[in-house]
Amino acid sequence: MAEQDSHRQHISGQFNQELETATAHMLEMGGLVEKQVLAALSALLELDSGDAQSVMSLDKAINAREVEIDDECFRILARRQPAAGDLRLVLAISKVLNDLERIGDESSRVARQAIALSEQAEEAPARPWIQKIAAIVIDMLRSALDAFARRDAQAALAVARGDEEIDAQMAGAMTALADAMREDPDYVEACITAMWALRSFERIGDHARNIAEYVIYMVEGVDVRHAELDAVLDLLPARSRPE
Amino acid sequence: MAEQDSHRQHISGQFNQELETATAHMLEMGGLVEKQVLAALSALLELDSGDAQSVMSLDKAINAREVEIDDECFRILARRQPAAGDLRLVLAISKVLNDLERIGDESSRVARQAIALSEQAEEAPARPWIQKIAAIVIDMLRSALDAFARRDAQAALAVARGDEEIDAQMAGAMTALADAMREDPDYVEACITAMWALRSFERIGDHARNIAEYVIYMVEGVDVRHAELDAVLDLLPARSRPE
Repeated sequence: MAEQDSHRQHISGQFNQELETATAHMLEMGGLVEKQVLAALSALLELDSGDAQSVMSLDKAINAREVEIDDECFRILARRQPAAGDLRLVLAISKVLNDLERIGDESSRVARQAIALSEQAEEAPARPWIQKIAAIVIDMLRSALDAFARRDAQAALAVARGDEEIDAQMAGAMTALADAMREDPDYVEACITAMWALRSFERIGDHARNIAEYVIYMVEGVDVRHAELDAVLDLLPARSRPE
Repeated sequence: MAEQDSHRQHISGQFNQELETATAHMLEMGGLVEKQVLAALSALLELDSGDAQSVMSLDKAINAREVEIDDECFRILARRQPAAGDLRLVLAISKVLNDLERIGDESSRVARQAIALSEQAEEAPARPWIQKIAAIVIDMLRSALDAFARRDAQAALAVARGDEEIDAQMAGAMTALADAMREDPDYVEACITAMWALRSFERIGDHARNIAEYVIYMVEGVDVRHAELDAVLDLLPARSRPE
């Protein structure tokens, strides 16, 4: 009996180890992706096509990591057949991987725009908006991954709120770019390029929000995708509600 | 012994039934999403803001379906603990749901552009490109879902090839729109709106490609995300290779 218990503890210790390793791998990939976003932003602001090339060439490594870690999740599901909270953790990792990979794609897109822009203009159009929107988005991504690491549903909820600020800034940026194009037809190409880059940062914000939602799902077992934030607050246990 | 076998067969029959039901629900949601894409296209070409409103209001129902069917997948994983091919099927359904939901979001975005455009112009700029790109994309989505229903990895591979045609058409559309904006500053707003709409159709094509990749993964157990198509062909068993 005692032997059986110790065997069970051994198995369950291995299982927890596997879950922790998969989580660590995903967060590590998150760190890589975060660096990609920062590097893409810097390439865009400095119009540095060398930096942009590095971002694009690193994307393959990130894609490979997604497939590897997702395979790790598959093997845990197949061999360990986790239930309840453990199952939610594995599924959350798998879903977050997908968003991270797409953030990597968007970073490559920004890098491609940086290269185009370096041939079209002396300076990125709408530069102050790019800086502001990218700063919000990078903060959302960092906070969402941090909330995952700490299993913090309340912090994850706060990330989901970053969206509105992005919408406001994007509207301002689009008006400024349209005005600039109307005033100077020679500036049309560069402004279009800046628009695509801004749109990519906006998408990165969407993905950060998705990651935050998976954290809430993992911690609370409440699926908050597509829910209004106030309704989500009512669903959460009191301990997760913001003061 | 015979009784146990019959019990097992009964359980396994129920299990297969659950897998088929989840697949059917996902494909049904795929049908709804396909209709949304068509309706959004029609709203954009006809500049019909009434139709556009219907697309946007149906999006909530699609989001709710995603959460319901994903929950169905979660319950199958938790209770049935499927292995190998069955596990791949459930995970593929869950991942496809995510892409379908995002196609729904892109359709809503196109609908929003249709409303904006109805106030900015008499006719959608770059209309022939919109029609052509949307037609390719809708065909890709339909074929990807069809390949899922028939577990047809070869058909899924063909879908992944639609991408290159979209890239070529998008490049043409962007040049035409930039020229139009340079020629007539009053046309800038409408051209920007058309660009966002085209970009949404392009994204729908990306999601259709993702769905096709999950079909190959499900059928063959080969993860083809991010792989070059020719390398994929080498990975597949001979029966799945195109002639």
